[in-house]
Amino acid sequence: MSATGSGDTAGPGGLTHLNAAGEARMVDVSAKEVTIRTATAAGRVRLSAACVAALRSGDVPKGDALAVARIAGIMAAKKTPELVPLCHPLMISGVDVTAEVTDDGVELRATVKTNERTGVEMEALTAVGVAGLAVVDMVKALDRDAVITDVRVIAKSGGRSGDYRRAGK
Amino acid sequence: MSATGSGDTAGPGGLTHLNAAGEARMVDVSAKEVTIRTATAAGRVRLSAACVAALRSGDVPKGDALAVARIAGIMAAKKTPELVPLCHPLMISGVDVTAEVTDDGVELRATVKTNERTGVEMEALTAVGVAGLAVVDMVKALDRDAVITDVRVIAKSGGRSGDYRRAGK
Amino acid sequence: MSATGSGDTAGPGGLTHLNAAGEARMVDVSAKEVTIRTATAAGRVRLSAACVAALRSGDVPKGDALAVARIAGIMAAKKTPELVPLCHPLMISGVDVTAEVTDDGVELRATVKTNERTGVEMEALTAVGVAGLAVVDMVKALDRDAVITDVRVIAKSGGRSGDYRRAGK
Amino acid sequence: MSATGSGDTAGPGGLTHLNAAGEARMVDVSAKEVTIRTATAAGRVRLSAACVAALRSGDVPKGDALAVARIAGIMAAKKTPELVPLCHPLMISGVDVTAEVTDDGVELRATVKTNERTGVEMEALTAVGVAGLAVVDMVKALDRDAVITDVRVIAKSGGRSGDYRRAGK
Amino acid sequence: MSATGSGDTAGPGGLTHLNAAGEARMVDVSAKEVTIRTATAAGRVRLSAACVAALRSGDVPKGDALAVARIAGIMAAKKTPELVPLCHPLMISGVDVTAEVTDDGVELRATVKTNERTGVEMEALTAVGVAGLAVVDMVKALDRDAVITDVRVIAKSGGRSGDYRRAGK
Amino acid sequence: MSATGSGDTAGPGGLTHLNAAGEARMVDVSAKEVTIRTATAAGRVRLSAACVAALRSGDVPKGDALAVARIAGIMAAKKTPELVPLCHPLMISGVDVTAEVTDDGVELRATVKTNERTGVEMEALTAVGVAGLAVVDMVKALDRDAVITDVRVIAKSGGRSGDYRRAGK
Repeated sequence: MSATGSGDTAGPGGLTHLNAAGEARMVDVSAKEVTIRTATAAGRVRLSAACVAALRSGDVPKGDALAVARIAGIMAAKKTPELVPLCHPLMISGVDVTAEVTDDGVELRATVKTNERTGVEMEALTAVGVAGLAVVDMVKALDRDAVITDVRVIAKSGGRSGDYRRAGK
Repeated sequence: MSATGSGDTAGPGGLTHLNAAGEARMVDVSAKEVTIRTATAAGRVRLSAACVAALRSGDVPKGDALAVARIAGIMAAKKTPELVPLCHPLMISGVDVTAEVTDDGVELRATVKTNERTGVEMEALTAVGVAGLAVVDMVKALDRDAVITDVRVIAKSGGRSGDYRRAGK
Repeated sequence: MSATGSGDTAGPGGLTHLNAAGEARMVDVSAKEVTIRTATAAGRVRLSAACVAALRSGDVPKGDALAVARIAGIMAAKKTPELVPLCHPLMISGVDVTAEVTDDGVELRATVKTNERTGVEMEALTAVGVAGLAVVDMVKALDRDAVITDVRVIAKSGGRSGDYRRAGK
Repeated sequence: MSATGSGDTAGPGGLTHLNAAGEARMVDVSAKEVTIRTATAAGRVRLSAACVAALRSGDVPKGDALAVARIAGIMAAKKTPELVPLCHPLMISGVDVTAEVTDDGVELRATVKTNERTGVEMEALTAVGVAGLAVVDMVKALDRDAVITDVRVIAKSGGRSGDYRRAGK
Repeated sequence: MSATGSGDTAGPGGLTHLNAAGEARMVDVSAKEVTIRTATAAGRVRLSAACVAALRSGDVPKGDALAVARIAGIMAAKKTPELVPLCHPLMISGVDVTAEVTDDGVELRATVKTNERTGVEMEALTAVGVAGLAVVDMVKALDRDAVITDVRVIAKSGGRSGDYRRAGK
Repeated sequence: MSATGSGDTAGPGGLTHLNAAGEARMVDVSAKEVTIRTATAAGRVRLSAACVAALRSGDVPKGDALAVARIAGIMAAKKTPELVPLCHPLMISGVDVTAEVTDDGVELRATVKTNERTGVEMEALTAVGVAGLAVVDMVKALDRDAVITDVRVIAKSGGRSGDYRRAGK
């Protein structure tokens, strides 16, 4: 971007976040259209069988365990532009984070919606990634080998590049 | 924790971050020892062959591409207690983040050090996870299928629970 | 909210911030209208007579005492979505905070304005609440019994739910 | 405070956060002792009978309603120095927030602990105040007249000024 | 601003950020037009000849030295409303920061773009100022006498007050 | 820094914040001594004569004009590690910011104190720089040509490198 302004041209090798000299920039999106955009990301925290059992056992109250992860994810979606250096700030209009205990850990999913000039894939990924960190923090006294894995965009709609649905899953 | 104070007892099912009623709390660590503690976490962003080629190609300047990821990781380590709801705030005394292009993506590693009452596993994991988000953001126009994966603690030293080195790798 | 998306339906018992399963979410507001919205909140810090006298006495300079509270309130209004987990981020277009010493403490009032899809009651309440915290911090060496009280919305305009003016005061 | 440094002397009228000219400062605490300090604050959100009934009714899931308030309070305690302009940053070593539905609303209580040079009253008050904001946000579609009230320190221990227990309640 | 609202009238002596009583406020901009606005700021870090030589010498790798400054500037532009108390929050649509080693230090320049109701001069100045702080931090073991200087707006476009280009340079 | 760890060795060309490969890192300070450290920085905002007159004129209330700058500086000192990517987080034990109207603008000075393992020069510089941004924001409707200048450390005490007092002024 410059004051006289060319905008959203690709950087070297297609890396749009770099200018022609290879320097980081926040790409100019002021000419992009304001539309409703959504993105869904998913990921997983792989846990030991003992840890899954503790999360599932019916004889202890665990009301807040997954709530902490969901809330951490929602709040992190709002912090995306603070965390990812070249991300545009944007106003999220809705976030939904789910956390489900499965046989080998916790499955996480986040859907983010906006009416803005850029997509919300990074917001959805950040929600899943930070929800995953909150799960690991919650169980770390029980399972030192927890792994956050398969954090990826699974669907996207709105914007110039069109809809996307990840192949496979 | 309470004013009359019991402290670091385990919550239901060994989930220390929950009290006896299953409610989230920030566990009292005031009686823990101040020692030098380190943790190393690692992870990977899996990228397409075309995307790896763009990151590697010698004919374009890409000075800042991995610098953005490293710096995002360092800054995120400092933000861990803002992101992970029940994490204790602590003063990091050093952080090192590496990002290396491999045949199938970018390998990330973070080592965090402190002189405090709690360990820095969560800080190291946060550094890796956010560095991974920065990589995905950088390449997302080239590769919509990028995956952040295998984010895990690989080594830890200091503190009551003793040294840890992840089995396998 | 979901990618296929129904949006702003009420949750259990009318608690819109919970989904049908009782899980926290940030409600989808992308279909709401962008209009000018204002909200005014008020509250009070109840102080001892000696503390009020110190804030009022003419023989000492106290230029910054209430300025700190006003500025804390204005800055807090901008931080509302960081503090209140399910609040939508929004761009405030104006904030006015007043702090007046009365016979029994400090009376606080905040008016917030926006051109967005959601109201600014939470922003106005946050401004008053945090201005109150700043007052308590300022006087705490003089008065350990300070109380922040009666923090409430007193008027609201704009948006689908129409204008509101609190009964009584 | 100054480079040649006098430190923690009282400002005009006993307002320690102002210097002799009435200007805001962050008081020098470097000569204060590091000890274990705790503070407990309490407060209440006054709600309509219908709103209390909705929070209590057994036929709808409301798992996250109070969890959101508790987690907001814990996270806010960590943000106190960002919110209250003249507060010292400090490392909290534990936080416990409770939220209980009563006949006329939600009763909130927060206990904060630290090993530092200053007390944690402001952290405990901030936790209660922000937990209160989260409750109001949760119920605002049901009850526009919610009031956050009686936010006050009820007990304190550690530090030079000695233990404190609020008279009455 | 008030609920009955006059808005953007000048305060005492033309200081728009103060109300008639001289109290700080965030001026109401809700009636201003949404247009594309840009601002460019510049500044310099004056360094010793030895320090310039270290930044320039070809025999050591210094890939990240200026990248840190550029990225710090980009991220700081997003934080402007958190830093400058009466600044309106706004969504930046692009930022470009350059850092060039000259014979007497490092020349910094930032261009910020937005589609909003207020200008982005403060964002551009903040980007330059914080990039300057990052440069000083980077070299402070080599040069204790570094000075950040001449931080100023050099051009501005969009908005009611029309285009501006600084006289001289 | 590394897990097996050498720590605070100089990077290429004496740039301690870079490792041997020229990559940014947060230098390990865990072996440094905890001592009382202070730093004083100064700077200036150069303003037009008309703007100085407005700040000085006795016929309008301007109570908050310089208070905003002082408070912005104090709060910014606490945010230094968020702004300057490789700065260590640390607990400030006191901050004093002064802002004085002179014939050609506003003179700013900040003194910061800590009991930690690293110095507070960056915190003092950040306080001055951000106080300067707040001054510019305050007067920008009156004076578009304001310049923040001569931001520099003028004195420092404590720590291994010994006391420092800037030559000249």
